[in-house]
Order: sequence, then C-alpha cells, then structure tokens
Amino acid sequence: MKVVIVGGVAGGASAAARLRRLDEKIEIVILERGAYISYANCGLPYYLSGKIQKEEDLVVQTPELLGKRFNLDIRTNQEVMEINQIKKTILIKDQIKNKTYEEKYDKLLLSPGAKPFIPPIKGLDTDKVFSLRDIPDVLAIKEFLEKKNPKRVVIFGAGYIGIEIAENLKKAGFIVTIIELMDQILGPLDYEMATLVHQHLKEKEVEFYLSDPVQSIEHDGSCQILILASGKKIKTDMIIMGVGVRPEIGLAKDAGLDIGTTGGIKVNEYLQTSDPDIYAVGDAIEVLDYISGSAALIPLAGPANKQGRTAAGNILGERSVYNGTQGSSIIKVFDITIATTGNNEKLLKRNKITYQKSYTHSPSHAGYYPGASPISLKILFSPDDGKILGAQAVGKEGVDKRIDVIATAIRAGLSVSDLENLELCYAPPYGSAKDPVNMAGYVANNIIKGDVDIFHWDEFEQHDLNNCIILDVRKPDECEEGIIESAINIPLDELRDRLGELDNNKMILIYCQVGLRGYLAYRILKLNGFSKVKNLSGGYKTYYPTTCIQSNCPLYSYEKILKSDVLEADSKK
Amino acid sequence: MKVVIVGGVAGGASAAARLRRLDEKIEIVILERGAYISYANCGLPYYLSGKIQKEEDLVVQTPELLGKRFNLDIRTNQEVMEINQIKKTILIKDQIKNKTYEEKYDKLLLSPGAKPFIPPIKGLDTDKVFSLRDIPDVLAIKEFLEKKNPKRVVIFGAGYIGIEIAENLKKAGFIVTIIELMDQILGPLDYEMATLVHQHLKEKEVEFYLSDPVQSIEHDGSCQILILASGKKIKTDMIIMGVGVRPEIGLAKDAGLDIGTTGGIKVNEYLQTSDPDIYAVGDAIEVLDYISGSAALIPLAGPANKQGRTAAGNILGERSVYNGTQGSSIIKVFDITIATTGNNEKLLKRNKITYQKSYTHSPSHAGYYPGASPISLKILFSPDDGKILGAQAVGKEGVDKRIDVIATAIRAGLSVSDLENLELCYAPPYGSAKDPVNMAGYVANNIIKGDVDIFHWDEFEQHDLNNCIILDVRKPDECEEGIIESAINIPLDELRDRLGELDNNKMILIYCQVGLRGYLAYRILKLNGFSKVKNLSGGYKTYYPTTCIQSNCPLYSYEKILKSDVLEADSKK
Repeated sequence: MKVVIVGGVAGGASAAARLRRLDEKIEIVILERGAYISYANCGLPYYLSGKIQKEEDLVVQTPELLGKRFNLDIRTNQEVMEINQIKKTILIKDQIKNKTYEEKYDKLLLSPGAKPFIPPIKGLDTDKVFSLRDIPDVLAIKEFLEKKNPKRVVIFGAGYIGIEIAENLKKAGFIVTIIELMDQILGPLDYEMATLVHQHLKEKEVEFYLSDPVQSIEHDGSCQILILASGKKIKTDMIIMGVGVRPEIGLAKDAGLDIGTTGGIKVNEYLQTSDPDIYAVGDAIEVLDYISGSAALIPLAGPANKQGRTAAGNILGERSVYNGTQGSSIIKVFDITIATTGNNEKLLKRNKITYQKSYTHSPSHAGYYPGASPISLKILFSPDDGKILGAQAVGKEGVDKRIDVIATAIRAGLSVSDLENLELCYAPPYGSAKDPVNMAGYVANNIIKGDVDIFHWDEFEQHDLNNCIILDVRKPDECEEGIIESAINIPLDELRDRLGELDNNKMILIYCQVGLRGYLAYRILKLNGFSKVKNLSGGYKTYYPTTCIQSNCPLYSYEKILKSDVLEADSKK
Repeated sequence: MKVVIVGGVAGGASAAARLRRLDEKIEIVILERGAYISYANCGLPYYLSGKIQKEEDLVVQTPELLGKRFNLDIRTNQEVMEINQIKKTILIKDQIKNKTYEEKYDKLLLSPGAKPFIPPIKGLDTDKVFSLRDIPDVLAIKEFLEKKNPKRVVIFGAGYIGIEIAENLKKAGFIVTIIELMDQILGPLDYEMATLVHQHLKEKEVEFYLSDPVQSIEHDGSCQILILASGKKIKTDMIIMGVGVRPEIGLAKDAGLDIGTTGGIKVNEYLQTSDPDIYAVGDAIEVLDYISGSAALIPLAGPANKQGRTAAGNILGERSVYNGTQGSSIIKVFDITIATTGNNEKLLKRNKITYQKSYTHSPSHAGYYPGASPISLKILFSPDDGKILGAQAVGKEGVDKRIDVIATAIRAGLSVSDLENLELCYAPPYGSAKDPVNMAGYVANNIIKGDVDIFHWDEFEQHDLNNCIILDVRKPDECEEGIIESAINIPLDELRDRLGELDNNKMILIYCQVGLRGYLAYRILKLNGFSKVKNLSGGYKTYYPTTCIQSNCPLYSYEKILKSDVLEADSKK
C-alpha cells in the first residue's frame, strides 16, 4: 500500500509518524510545497523580537531526520497540481527542476493548511506588504526590517497572529499600529473581555484603531499612507497582514471533492472527504464545533495534530471518530494571558443556543502569598441544566490552568455545579482552597438555583432607571476611584443597619468591585423582604473598562484593574 | 434556630458564611479555642523565611470583621469541654476568664481540625521542640530563631509540612536536616517519583536521612543529640515536628459519637455524625476516598472548605451529598513543583485495586520557545477500561496545570483514551500541540490497546537476564552519561538497518531517555517479526534516579535530569 500525504506540517507530519508506527511495510510519501516540513509555525512571530533567536530553532524536524526515523519518502518543493480520482494518481510539479510528474496513491491525505487572507484594497500590491505563514515569510519580514530600516509598522487585523506580531515588533523597538474592522481585538473573546486587553495594549503603547477599516492606500516615496473609513490618515513604512486565514481548498475543489458551507474541505467523522480514499485534516477542513455541532472553521495546531493521528489510524483500517473541535486557544499579550474554550456569546447567538453567563475576578493564588493577581473569568452555561458552553479568561498568572480545567470539564460534559466540586491542587503559591474555577462554579450555580438574580454590564438601560436604586456596596475609598452614575453608596458591612434607607417599591440594582459583596448584599436584602433586587455580575471591574473604551476616556490601566482588592472570599487559607 | 460551630478556621468559617447567606434570621455562634479564626494555616511555613513578611498577613479575617459581615457571634479563646446530646447543650471553658458556661444548640457543627502527632521518643519534652499548627506556634518558632540564635534545625518527618518548613528555614540561612522513618520523602508520591525530589533537596543542601528513625535524644548543654536507628548521631539546636497530624476527636469521642476505623469522626454522606443534629467537617473527619470508596483521613484545606459549605446547606435542610475526597495536593520545593491527585500505587495495592502505570517526561511548553523544562508525569489507570486512578508529577513549570486537568478528568470519570482527546490551550509559551496530558494519554492507551508491552524501572530482575538483550536506542553521546549494565547500544535511527544483530529467540528489553524512542523501537521490532519485546516505561530518566539513591552514589542532579533532551515528539509546533 502507498499513502501519499500532501503537506508536511502539523497534521501531515503527525499522520506520517503514526502511519509508520502502525505499519512498517507501507510506502509513505510526503509532498510539501515549501522547503520546510514540520516547522514551528506558532513560533514565527517570536523570531521577529529575537525571543526565538535562531532560524534553526524554527525547524522542528528536517526532512532528512524525519525521513530516516520513520522511513518516509519526503519531498520538499513539490506542488501537487491535480488529483485524478479514477486513476488514483496525482500530478506533481517539482519546483526546483521545474517539471511535472505523476505519482500513484492507494490512499491520499490532504493537509494543505490555510493561507493568509488579503483584503481587496487598492494599493496593497507593493513590496512593503507582508504576510506571515511560513519560514520564508518570516525571513522576508526580518530582512526588510534589517535592510530597509522601517520605523513604523501597520498590522491589518487584531486576531491572534496580528497581536502576536504587534507585541514582538513593539518589543523590537518599532512603532506599531493595528487596524481592525471590528469594535474589538481578539475575536474569540467577547467584547467586554476584550476591553481588558485593550487597556493593556494602551499601556504598552501599541496604537490601535477599532471599527475603522482601511479604505485605500496612497504612496508617498518609500512610505504608505493608509486612509481609514473615518477619514483618518496613517503613515507607515511597512504593512503586515493579520486579517485571518482561508482554507487551501484549490486542489480539493478542482478534484470535485465536496466543500462545506464554511468554505473548508468537507469530511465525515472519520476525516474522509467525499472520495473515501482521500482523507483531509488540519486548517483546510471544515470541522464540527464541539459545542453546537454546527460546521465551523477552527484553524488550530492542537486539533490539526490530533486529526492527523486519527486519519492515519483510519487509513489503516481503524474506525476512529474525530469528535469535533471546541476551540481551546490561548495568547500571551505582553504581561497578560488570554485564553478561551468552547463558544463565546457571539457564536452562541449565531448558533441559537440559549445561554446564561457570569463573571468572577478571583485571585490567581492565595492573597497572603506574594504575587497574586486577579483572573477575570467569564463562563457561559445553559440556564436549564448548567451545562458549560464556554469560558474566557484574562489575567497575569494561572489563566492557562483555569481554562484548561474548564476545557476538560466541557469535553466531559460537566455542568457548573460540577465545577463547584472539582478538587484542584491547593498550596498558597498555586491557588486557593476555593479555586477560581470553584468560585466560577459557585457563582454560576447560584444563578441557576435562584439564589441570586443578576444583571449584566450592558443591561442598565434595560431597566426603568427612574424606578431603580443603583446601590454601590463598596467601601467609600473604593468609590473615590469611580462610581456608576446616580449610584448611592451603602458599604456592605453597614447594610443590615441601614435597610430603612432603601425603598422596597423600587428595583435595587446592586454592584460592588467584583460581584461577591454584591451577592452578599443581594442575600441580605432578599432575606429581609426586598422583592426586586439584582446584582451586577462581575461588578465594577467588568463594567468600567467597557464604558471607558466606549467613551474614549483616558487610559484606564490594566494595572489598576489588577490592583483593587479582590480578596473577598469566605476563607482564603 | 441556633447553630453552634466548634472551630473557626477552614471548614467552620466556610460553613458560617454559607449559613448566613442562606438565612438572615438564625443565630450562629462560632467557638474557637485559639485567639485567631480564619487564619492562613497553609501559609505558616512561609512566615519563617520572610516570604510572607507580616504577622497580620497570616490573618485572613479578624473575628470582628467576619462577625460584622455575616452577623456571627464569634468567641475566641473558648474551649468546648463537653457535649450533652440529650439537653442539646455544650459546656464551654472561657480561657481568658477561666470559667465555664453552658450554651444551647439546635444544630452543632464540629470543625476541630487535627493536631500534630508527637512520636513517643524519650527526651522530646524540652522547650527546644516545636510543632507548627497555628499562629502562636509559628510566632514561638520565630521567637526562638531570633532570640536563641540556633544554627542547626532538625525536622522530624518529610511530609508536606516538614518539607515546607525545611525549605523556608534553609532559605533563612539555617542548617537543616530532615529525619524520615520511610525510605522516601513526601508520602503522597510513589518511591520512584520521590527520588526526583531527593535529588533536588541534595542540590539545595538540605540534609535528610531516610529509613532511619530517631531512637533517643540526649542533651548536651543547649544542644540535643539525636541517636538514629542506624547509630548515627546528629547534633541540633532545635527540633520541629512534621510527622503528620491526628484528628482532634476527643470531644466527639467523649460524647459517644461514632469514630471511624481510621480514627476520624465518622460522618454520613451529608456530613452528619451518628447524632443527626451534630455535623462534622475538616481534618477531624473520616472521608471516603473518591477512587477506592474506602474510609480515609485526607486532611486538606480545599476539601475542608467544601465540606463546610455542604454541611451548612444540609443544616438548613438541603440534602447535598459530599462525594468523597480524591486527595489533590501540591507542594513547592525550592525550584520545583510536586503535585498528585487520586491514589498512588501504595494506596491502590492496599485497596486491592488492579492497576497499570506509565511514565512520560514531556516538555512543559514547546521546545523551541525558551524556558521549557520536562514534566515527569506518572499516571495510574485501570488495565481493563483505562479509567484514571491517579497521577503524580514533578517539574519546574506547568505541573499544577497538568495535575489539575487530570484531577478534573478523574472527577468526571474519564479514561486514558479521553486524555488523548482533551483539547487544551496551545501557544508556544504555554504548552505543545500535543500537551503533556495528551502524551500521557497516548502512552497509557497504547498499553491498553496492546500497541506496546512495557516493563518498569524495578522489573529488570523479574526477567531471566541471561536470555534477554537490554537494548539502549539512544544516541552514543547520551549513553556516555550513563548506561544500564550490560546494555547494547543501537541508536533508533540505525535500528532498521541493524536488525540482524539482534537474536529473535531472546527477550529484548528496550530503553531510551524518556520512553518515546523506545516505543518507536518496539514498533519497529514487533512489526519486523521480533516476538518478545518490551519497552522501559519512562526510560532512563525514570530508572536512573532510583538506582542512584539506592546505591548512595554521588549527587545525580535534578538539573541534569532537566537538561537532557526530551524533545522527541512527532511534531512540536
């Protein structure tokens, strides 16, 4: 048997190794269009700042070593031009020798990846416009930076790759501006969670424009002038594309293989295309969203590797099912970490899934042990049975751990009440006796059980504010840093003695710094006969950054968000 | 209704707060024998090195603030002497006024904790012997250190508290010696995992004696001379007890409440004692081991807090079940982290649970991004269905995350094949496309599926070594650092060409550095017709430190363990 693999990076390389582990006799051919296989594509941005220093560190495996170890016929600089499904052959162009040849296959595995999207803007066709997909791309950018001595760089798009490029170029000393079509950076986050990162980028002096796409580009000597929708003009010495990727489906489409509604190659649960002898994996395919079951494009390295492994088994007669992708992802942005798993609100709305949400800001580890900082955690769950639908977190420390725990809970089909009972490791340097994940579970489950009625940062206006009392239960010194308009302040510890000051006929909208004291105040009021009470989920820490961006007010520092006391748990040993 | 809580730390404080959140009207009394409630007992060792600087940082909540916030009647320095179950009263001794009084209760919650065990050794009754349970204890030790100017400290017992005290006193400049009855430190670890920590302690110049208990103590002026079982004599200026804790059951026992076989207060799944109006939580109770279902003492702060919350609900009429404790725990030892969850081998044997185990040493994050270090991970699982029974990990970075993920998987009843499919967050600073947890899943599941037959570090002798080939498949330069006796070396990448050198009639015992290349070699040999082949799980990295300790050979540095290449995955993007 002969298996031919098109593409030798994540999914392709993973599949080849697995195929050989399962069978010593079959012939395995890898055809890679580029000069490199199995390179560190997620590491490319870090080469721009010198965090990853050597070009050779970007190469995970050379064709020679991988070929030797797994007895593979690896051919680089070979572009597959055509698939003939009847003859079971492919037409290959050898880009070095500049000639074409045919190769037979018994099973074909497509792992062509995705290519950076270039928006249709006039003037983008200059030699000062770059993308970042592979090693030659990063070498070209590095060479331009070193030889042409640019000072200003504009990045189109504030997705993961755009932000990673921005951080690394800023660290390398360039003036960096990001231009983003949407009203937020980092699409996998919901808006209010992204606002925390907006503040951090401002602190780090990365300029960004939101909801303000580039309309046209003018040239002025060696520099480009970008004209935004708002009319604003931005001068730059180079442009890097980070507006996302599109599946490489040309080959599959030309062969008549089914393409999904999302634009990726369609595969079944065994990762077979519409031709059962042709499998496909990685960024080029349409997957099932693990939460909604709907078709999606989720280009991530972890799933690509797992798909490669699964497809390899199936090519050799296993019947392993690929169960869908939940979209666990993470990014470092200067001093903070942002991670997400499952669906965000935007997706849940699009998929018409009913959800509730809650916010917590818990210390990353016991407050009395030095170095703790808050983890801002949003959790999305079914209001019926509490099933976890997604989570997003932002913070300095321990963000990856909490989202990985919730990602595991999602895979296992757990609900928010299960999060309450997770027994996670606790010692002061690592967590709290009630871990942030436990806290998120308590808070969410209190909502489901009806122990608290909440409202959200963007829902003030949904209330008849003339018939509401906005009640701030923080300490007076906390209020000095900012208070929600028309709120009255009764500190939590005085509330029982001052119930008479509140009008029971009005709706009482409570808030505190992070939501915990607000919850305690809610309980006091409800149990003392107040009938219409709600607590602001996530408190002032969730509310304020959103208003801050919306009104273009001066820098509300993420450092300040980190500073305020979050140590309000019952017991923090 | 009046609820009286005996003990105001973890479980007691947690219960009180929850009771008040559920009910504004009931009377809640907390009786605490000591002067402090809700203090940072897990933080106490860190006060000895100055990592936690101020005494006030050890106090999480003062009686005044907690009492005010939750409307609690908190009385410190009150020792409960007696329970009258018929009259539903308790007899209390006010230790300040030195008089006794009675108090009625409707429901009683016992949260008395556990006390340090003092072994029956003659000569331990001096004023130079200390324990560390609460704030007065730590202040007494600190005062002795400052006023008596000791140079040498001996710690009895190498459990979590003993090792934490050792680290902090070493950092404060003292000569620290640990004396341990067992042949390893840190009982929650199995022996071969503990050997990694032994090496690290040696590097940090903490002296320790294993399997060598103190037999007697002599006094020589202001110093003590400890005579060990081996005859060795050790001089010291002070002694600190770290040999473990025993449940505080005096009050419960005197009242005739049932005591479990393990010596803890017996409770049902609702945390009720044998008197349904008396509940008990925390280190004083006997819990169900979540893995085996057998009775166990598992004194940990996280479970104590959760029990307090559960008991509070049940006191007010909920019927919440406490589902048992799985023993997730973690400790920082100088530069490394050790974490465990579920049962270790010792427990599984005792509980007569059939298990298999496997070892991996995976990089904490992508190898091409600076700063990665290996995580040594042991996973225990059912050989039948792959259900996860326990895990232990040692490493510099990311250990807490991986054990918390596995702890979550255990709670959800997942198996090792589920670990393969977990979709965890990946970016180069945080992990790998195939996370260490995925890798552990692959390795364990390969064993279950029969894709590999393994043997363990202590099983060489179980083979007829005269009829075995011990095959080292590492590179020659790796072998220079040490090779297993009588092994022959054929590097993996030469194996296919040198099959003729191996005798198919012999059992071939393969090993490499961490187990991955050994697995690849196993597959090559099996698929090429060799019938008797096994791979050493965890490779030389798991094997060598154990032999090193056993033979008292010179320091095998943990730094060296960290250094060797572990970057052998198929694809590391």
